[in-house]
Amino acid sequence: MNDLTRLRDHLATIGDLHSAAALLRWDQETYMPPGGAGIRARQLATLSRLAHERFTSPLTGSLLEEAEPLLNRLASDSDDAALLRVTRRDFDRARKLPAEFVAERARAASESTEVWRTARPANDFPAFRPHLARMVEFARRTADYLGYTQHPYDALLDQYEPETTTRDVAALFDRLREVTVPLVRAIAARGEVADARFLDREYAEEPVRGFALSIIRSFGYDTARGRLDTSAHPFSTQFGRDDVRITTRYPRRSLGALFGAFHEAGHAMYSQGSAPSLDGTPLGDGASHGIHESQSRLWENLVGRSRPFWQYAFPGLRQVFPAHLGSVDAELFYRAVNRVRPGLIRVDADEVTYNLHIIFRFELEQALVAGDLDVKDVPETWNAKMAESLGVTPPDDRDGVMQDIHWSLGMIGYFPSYTIGNVASVQFFEAARRAHPGLAEDIRLGRFGGLLGWLRDHVHAHGRKFLPKDLLFRATGGPLTPEPYLRYLREKFGEIYGLGGGGG
Amino acid sequence: MNDLTRLRDHLATIGDLHSAAALLRWDQETYMPPGGAGIRARQLATLSRLAHERFTSPLTGSLLEEAEPLLNRLASDSDDAALLRVTRRDFDRARKLPAEFVAERARAASESTEVWRTARPANDFPAFRPHLARMVEFARRTADYLGYTQHPYDALLDQYEPETTTRDVAALFDRLREVTVPLVRAIAARGEVADARFLDREYAEEPVRGFALSIIRSFGYDTARGRLDTSAHPFSTQFGRDDVRITTRYPRRSLGALFGAFHEAGHAMYSQGSAPSLDGTPLGDGASHGIHESQSRLWENLVGRSRPFWQYAFPGLRQVFPAHLGSVDAELFYRAVNRVRPGLIRVDADEVTYNLHIIFRFELEQALVAGDLDVKDVPETWNAKMAESLGVTPPDDRDGVMQDIHWSLGMIGYFPSYTIGNVASVQFFEAARRAHPGLAEDIRLGRFGGLLGWLRDHVHAHGRKFLPKDLLFRATGGPLTPEPYLRYLREKFGEIYGLGGGGG
Repeated sequence: MNDLTRLRDHLATIGDLHSAAALLRWDQETYMPPGGAGIRARQLATLSRLAHERFTSPLTGSLLEEAEPLLNRLASDSDDAALLRVTRRDFDRARKLPAEFVAERARAASESTEVWRTARPANDFPAFRPHLARMVEFARRTADYLGYTQHPYDALLDQYEPETTTRDVAALFDRLREVTVPLVRAIAARGEVADARFLDREYAEEPVRGFALSIIRSFGYDTARGRLDTSAHPFSTQFGRDDVRITTRYPRRSLGALFGAFHEAGHAMYSQGSAPSLDGTPLGDGASHGIHESQSRLWENLVGRSRPFWQYAFPGLRQVFPAHLGSVDAELFYRAVNRVRPGLIRVDADEVTYNLHIIFRFELEQALVAGDLDVKDVPETWNAKMAESLGVTPPDDRDGVMQDIHWSLGMIGYFPSYTIGNVASVQFFEAARRAHPGLAEDIRLGRFGGLLGWLRDHVHAHGRKFLPKDLLFRATGGPLTPEPYLRYLREKFGEIYGLGGGGG
Repeated sequence: MNDLTRLRDHLATIGDLHSAAALLRWDQETYMPPGGAGIRARQLATLSRLAHERFTSPLTGSLLEEAEPLLNRLASDSDDAALLRVTRRDFDRARKLPAEFVAERARAASESTEVWRTARPANDFPAFRPHLARMVEFARRTADYLGYTQHPYDALLDQYEPETTTRDVAALFDRLREVTVPLVRAIAARGEVADARFLDREYAEEPVRGFALSIIRSFGYDTARGRLDTSAHPFSTQFGRDDVRITTRYPRRSLGALFGAFHEAGHAMYSQGSAPSLDGTPLGDGASHGIHESQSRLWENLVGRSRPFWQYAFPGLRQVFPAHLGSVDAELFYRAVNRVRPGLIRVDADEVTYNLHIIFRFELEQALVAGDLDVKDVPETWNAKMAESLGVTPPDDRDGVMQDIHWSLGMIGYFPSYTIGNVASVQFFEAARRAHPGLAEDIRLGRFGGLLGWLRDHVHAHGRKFLPKDLLFRATGGPLTPEPYLRYLREKFGEIYGLGGGGG
């Protein structure tokens, strides 16, 4: 196995460059003083370039070639076989992107994000526009370098969801839209069923943070190997399985931060749960962004917005905010945090409308990359699509086209992963429930170890060893399918909104 | 100038690796969760190794050789000439140390520091002894690799104070001891002259932090390009001139944190003030550790422990702590924070006794490196020298020979920089006062811009362009000399302790 040791050492050095860069990015979002932006862009560009140069060097190719004959002797689900498969895939893809291009793209993304950070609160889309245009151009060039047979968007999507095509996603999204749009209408026709005004009060940041932290610790997020900070846009990042950090934000001092923390803790527990043998290798990461999102959504929604969870957690929250919640009970709280209201902001969206936000972004991105939509027309198109699918129109670009950080970072092709995650989250949750039929009762008692244990064994421990579709099949016994998710939505919200009938 | 562009780019990449490592170290001391230690050690080892490999590669040599003919055409005080001089010096020195030796030394230092971290609180010198012996041996071998004509200690000293010899330092230190020892005795004979017991009360951390921050901002520390955090050991670090961070600590909830913050802000303003043209090059740093220390000591002591400063600042501090300081006035506060008391701990020492701590460390280090002192005899010799020079004897090794981290890290030859900094701080301050005769009055009014402006122009802007002795000569018109410093000590403490006569 000496051949593999050399490959592993080589990849570990590259991994250290990537994880150092991840810390630099974490710092940029949390503690970096504003003046540090220029240096940071330079440092990140250098680390990316060096990692890319090393990884795409002929040495990687020859270490791979030396080791690949081992595949004949290795079990296909062994760590070593997976390392060779994943590294070969990454290597062949990375070789297609010139080092200079990668560095230039990283620098542009850093600059663009800094501009977005000030342009968004100033509602200044024209300031951001040239940067967006640049990032779209980088995405196009990326697709050209990577290659594709049908649509350049296939190449972009494949970066986040290996072996998933634009056509697959479009089919999934069509079915989701088909069921969701009438469901949203039926709910709207029903009107508000719970007096949720208490949610609009101001909740002081520090107690919200403290409560969130106590809950995510009880879920199983290990703060000896992580921490919770504040940033403008919540995220999770890992430097290895033993340092996995999350952030949340406290918008309008609402309880929204709780769900943000549950969400990011879901990501973080995935990273903390990968097998120690995968740490420091390219396998010590999630199978895809969609699978990652399935974990965050599972904890945020299937646990954190469930009735049994709030039966468990609400008394504690009411103790923290007696003046706000004295006259509220767990059932009302459950209904309130599940109110369905088509709104402007994706990250604030309820479970029913959320995917509609994704679906029109997916369409916009395809049009941008294909050159069918000019960047200057994006705000108008955005607003029209919002009105069409959600029935609301952004009053400004701040809460319209500029609401997400993704495009400023050049992450075009990423949004579909969110909805793939939603769909998969229900498949995983139902598989866990088949293994632990008492799961709902466990949650009602604040016992999350059975659920986390199942996820560790069937999802987390495998890191990036398997393709998303293979992982999903191994864990749930089937392929990605929207039906369990749609059934879940119809049952849960049908019950809350008294729509009659469990679905169909 | 194309030859220089290639060299600059090459050095910038290496600089980015170093500054990324600096951020990783900053995070390790401030926010890293305990679980992250293993990953962090691995990341830091990788970044150091890559930086060292690149810098000592033949490419650096050939880029230097291509560019060096330019020296005939460049003004000797130009940035480009300085870049070539400094890089040549660094390169020749780095090439003398085999990569394997550097890695082995780093590993040993890491182990030794881990042992020191537990041996110190356990007062277990025998556990630390073999590690100290190893670090002394590494220091000797370092000196052998680097080369020297007179004393191996010359080679070690030169790492921190370029072109400063053991003989220079010994002459300086002899003169300091000659004046300081009788001064300490005269002060001790006089006894306490101010009731400073209020300093021993507990001061809540957050208001101390807020006050420290407001003061260092008024000094000119730019928090848009920096920030103040908390760590076990205060330090300053820079990733470039536009991101220079400091930390302080709040030991025993005393006001000591204020002086720690002034000190670190002095380092940080030096880094923030280097010329933009030097940023990202090997010149964007201080001239030497001694010159760096001169800046921190200047703000900590010559400003921050001066009478005019507290005439300005004390009313504000009393407003923050009315219960603690209601019956104290600026004059009493000034005298209290300048009380002279021979003690065991270097970092807690007052201005008069501080250098005596350094002088005997310097003697011990020379004897260790020369092989005239065996490691097993170090505690006894330490205690004897403490008794001889400071009149106090450590009750144990924890607060004796094991009090500093430096030896565990292999930083032998570093201590003299502290005293060189003290001496130079007065020379710089007096030169600034000659240029701004109203300096004391400015400080009394809380105006620090004239002083900072002078330091920027004469010290900070030059970064690492000049050798310490050349920088000092350009700024003050003379070489390093102890007389201004000694005059300052005798006048200040003679007045406080009523010793009669201004000194002679």
